[in-house]
Amino acid sequence: MSEKVNINNAFGQFQENWRPKVVAHLNGQEVKVVKIQGEFPWHFHEDADEFFLCWTGLLRVEFRDKIVELKPGECLVIPRGVEHRSCAEEPTEFVIFEPMNVLNTGNLGKIDTFTAPNGVSV
Amino acid sequence: MSEKVNINNAFGQFQENWRPKVVAHLNGQEVKVVKIQGEFPWHFHEDADEFFLCWTGLLRVEFRDKIVELKPGECLVIPRGVEHRSCAEEPTEFVIFEPMNVLNTGNLGKIDTFTAPNGVSV
Repeated sequence: MSEKVNINNAFGQFQENWRPKVVAHLNGQEVKVVKIQGEFPWHFHEDADEFFLCWTGLLRVEFRDKIVELKPGECLVIPRGVEHRSCAEEPTEFVIFEPMNVLNTGNLGKIDTFTAPNGVSV
Repeated sequence: MSEKVNINNAFGQFQENWRPKVVAHLNGQEVKVVKIQGEFPWHFHEDADEFFLCWTGLLRVEFRDKIVELKPGECLVIPRGVEHRSCAEEPTEFVIFEPMNVLNTGNLGKIDTFTAPNGVSV
């Protein structure tokens, strides 16, 4: 039986940006928390839709044809195959729902600075 | 391309208890919001794990051998096959992440009072 997780506490347990941490897994999916500041590289995920829920800060999800700004409590699905990047001027925290083993840099493969190891729990 | 959803606004768009509303779908899963007050029947889901994230109020998830209380910002996975029921003394709102087409009353099948129609958006 899994234990409950306090999302705020989970965010309090790490500091680094662009390194999602798994807080739950179910049905082949993962729930992750991530901190960001700055701009992530443009990328897409061939086989995975992603759900982002802004928790603190201001999450700017950029697409090639539009920008969606998410305040705390606002969420968005990024459909598979759609190029996007996550950006934030200020320190920003958000929750992700997506399949297990999604590489955060998607089609770009491994980039030293941005690619995060998968399956790392808080 | 999906549009962003404000979770608080989604909760503001309906009043009834025990009727989950879909706010997003991805990878064969759904993100739902639900209001509850009182006690749901004991049930389990044979083929679906469920993720509950308390949004407002106090969500008491009862299992046969323990009770887990979730405050806002606290979350829990209910593994498939495990009997449970959701309860709340006060009006309570929570977010659900689970596979599409999960019957909320699980193994009990359709019960007039509690079984909600699937796939209903906010």
